[in-house]
Amino acid sequence: MNERLLYFEDLTPGRVFEGGRELMDAERIKVFAREFDPQPFHTDEEAAKESFFGELVASGWHTAAVTMRMMVEIMPIAGGSIGAGIDEFRWPRPCPAGETLSLRMTVLEARPMRSKPGQGLVRTRVETLNTAGEPVQSMVCITVVPMREGGI
Amino acid sequence: MNERLLYFEDLTPGRVFEGGRELMDAERIKVFAREFDPQPFHTDEEAAKESFFGELVASGWHTAAVTMRMMVEIMPIAGGSIGAGIDEFRWPRPCPAGETLSLRMTVLEARPMRSKPGQGLVRTRVETLNTAGEPVQSMVCITVVPMREGGI
Repeated sequence: MNERLLYFEDLTPGRVFEGGRELMDAERIKVFAREFDPQPFHTDEEAAKESFFGELVASGWHTAAVTMRMMVEIMPIAGGSIGAGIDEFRWPRPCPAGETLSLRMTVLEARPMRSKPGQGLVRTRVETLNTAGEPVQSMVCITVVPMREGGI
Repeated sequence: MNERLLYFEDLTPGRVFEGGRELMDAERIKVFAREFDPQPFHTDEEAAKESFFGELVASGWHTAAVTMRMMVEIMPIAGGSIGAGIDEFRWPRPCPAGETLSLRMTVLEARPMRSKPGQGLVRTRVETLNTAGEPVQSMVCITVVPMREGGI
């Protein structure tokens, strides 16, 4: 048993996990957007000035993908992070080029699954913060987590 | 005014937009996962066999990113697709390597924004379908859309 891996019993409501450090530079923002979200405010600094945002900003799906990378590092769950779904997924403010993102994860609820003995469902508020510590993304992740006893 | 671009008045509840064709091959799945979701069931065929999924599957965030690309193509909104948030984001079944994804978008609700004259909020059910036409992802997107009259 890897001591660093987390099980259901470790994810008690109120527990907070913090960390991560991901620079969203203009080049990464444009490379991601060209492949997945080809809109001018994500792919071109000049065109972005004329857009809703007024400057180059990261695709919300880029922020989401970078958030996943930080989640895997900060809250490593035994058997892997198996997402059952997301609620209340919001981007309260844009993420312009140059921001350094970090994560704050707060366990909201943990309950055993009736249908799958040895597993639990954990609801976690995941906030992705900009350099100033303000959320650029917020979501509630519902994750399947094995128990120490009878788990994977 | 680009005739192909969609405005608030075009997005009437019940209207369906379909299309897209994105092959999720093993190499793309692994490249995305190495950068954003480095877990064995997304990065390594052999290790995936021992995992929860039993085979290599796409990261849910990869499915989400590919979905965004298809959304931009199928439902091009004037001024760009400005996401206010997502509700009921679910991955009802995994997406193994080799699936070809497509999209079905159904407008659920459209209402003018009181706080921003000339703009509306549109709620759209976005389903990402596998080769067999079954959803691998489902979400309700809340999008800010300009009106023809008084819009962008």
